[in-house]
Amino acid sequence: MVLFLIGLGLGDVRDVSVRALDVIRRAYKVYLESYTSILMQGTAAMVELYGRPVIEADRTFVEQGCEQMLTEAKEHEVCLLIVGDVFCATTHADIFVRAKQLGITVKTIHNAGIMTGVGCTGLELYRFGYTVTVPFFTDSWKPDSFYDRIAQNMRANMHTLVLLDIKVKEQSIENLMRGRQVFEPPRYMTVNRCLEQLLEVEETRKEGVLSADMMAVGVARVGTDTQHIAAGPLASLVDLDFGPPLHCVIIPSKSLSDMERAMLGLFPPRSYEPQPEVAAPAQAPAAPSQ
Amino acid sequence: MVLFLIGLGLGDVRDVSVRALDVIRRAYKVYLESYTSILMQGTAAMVELYGRPVIEADRTFVEQGCEQMLTEAKEHEVCLLIVGDVFCATTHADIFVRAKQLGITVKTIHNAGIMTGVGCTGLELYRFGYTVTVPFFTDSWKPDSFYDRIAQNMRANMHTLVLLDIKVKEQSIENLMRGRQVFEPPRYMTVNRCLEQLLEVEETRKEGVLSADMMAVGVARVGTDTQHIAAGPLASLVDLDFGPPLHCVIIPSKSLSDMERAMLGLFPPRSYEPQPEVAAPAQAPAAPSQ
Repeated sequence: MVLFLIGLGLGDVRDVSVRALDVIRRAYKVYLESYTSILMQGTAAMVELYGRPVIEADRTFVEQGCEQMLTEAKEHEVCLLIVGDVFCATTHADIFVRAKQLGITVKTIHNAGIMTGVGCTGLELYRFGYTVTVPFFTDSWKPDSFYDRIAQNMRANMHTLVLLDIKVKEQSIENLMRGRQVFEPPRYMTVNRCLEQLLEVEETRKEGVLSADMMAVGVARVGTDTQHIAAGPLASLVDLDFGPPLHCVIIPSKSLSDMERAMLGLFPPRSYEPQPEVAAPAQAPAAPSQ
Repeated sequence: MVLFLIGLGLGDVRDVSVRALDVIRRAYKVYLESYTSILMQGTAAMVELYGRPVIEADRTFVEQGCEQMLTEAKEHEVCLLIVGDVFCATTHADIFVRAKQLGITVKTIHNAGIMTGVGCTGLELYRFGYTVTVPFFTDSWKPDSFYDRIAQNMRANMHTLVLLDIKVKEQSIENLMRGRQVFEPPRYMTVNRCLEQLLEVEETRKEGVLSADMMAVGVARVGTDTQHIAAGPLASLVDLDFGPPLHCVIIPSKSLSDMERAMLGLFPPRSYEPQPEVAAPAQAPAAPSQ
């Protein structure tokens, strides 16, 4: 009948839209795409808000084609929840195409994604170029194609959004070989690790694209109450504590507008300090009658 | 006390988030930024959903610095609602900076923006470059800097999102000179007009950036139930009817991934046909108990 692809936004379970919540509450089944990103609050908070069970669609589920979900969507209204906006990962376009091929109606309910969320730094969204992802380097695997993309964006006077690697539901080589469904703890790359890797690549490539004194911006938990932004010379950010995930980095264009400068000036390079929880007022303040 | 900058998403009044709706319902005052974009359903639908009056902050209000709103936000919780995501226009960063300078706490609730919404076409979001805006040409005013930006994106193998001019609350020269607060009807550029202007610029510049047979994508009303997408040679889209606003255009990179091709193939060049309203089921279908 209908497959709803529903964006959940950036961090809070209550970022779901009013329209989406209605659909979720009446749907036959509710799946959560849980391997390209995560909502830090976890599924328990979702189940509580929705009043519905939430089925985690992990990597295996999605890579095996979501068969069961698509079969159900032929007869029923089925939701696939996706953290961020819906088409943030290729895998969701794949599901869209497969559903269409099966004659299933697909409806999309968009939500906030990181690519417009980073507007919170004040950097103009229209000036962002190619978005890159920095993977966790290992001793033997240090892919650096992002370096060329950042260089390209810089030459064209564009900002670069740098997304950071996420490892969820990864298996150790031993568990993989033994076929054991035992997963490593999730790992989320920090701003610090990303910046270290950027400088490491510059060390190797020596093309002068990146440097310790160039402007960089570290951003954590965009759109949540604990959002933290720090802007300054790259070296000044390397040792800052940005707090819990998710983090991302922006390498701004060398030329900034006055407004961009004014905004970045609001976020000096300092570490995240958790704020004590502020108790909500027992009663909402009266609104003017007007 | 707190200024909330709240994104409304792309089209439906019920795209507001659950968290934002709570804030709006308890806020001292609710302003709507109504000159950089619009929610097609209008403010009446908002007032009904929110149960609160909504004050339209037009160009004059915003350009005069939103004084009243900021003064109120010193003492109360005040909302500024913004269509799309919050930092989609420079003017919102300006309000953010001014509020911070006045010592006001600013909280942002993000929502879907057009820049990730266009992921619905299947074109990979990370491959988009500089975003351009095409203004309404007049006989004597035909600014074409977007042409160079599209060329630059193409060379770097990036897609270009082309946003289309919106004229709301414009005054005729006569009314402006006479100081009459009489406004022209709003005008929204169509895909058709945009493509014609693109070809007109190519005619003048003759640098081979754009052509009638290159791939283009027209998109209307992203994220709504009447969303319409058509992809094909630019000339095949020029005369299509995309229906009511808002429209935008994408000039894809020359090289597309298999998935991008598969997605665009789902949107052949044809006109929008309004669907008859489907009555909602009287009762929601039963959900499985599991």
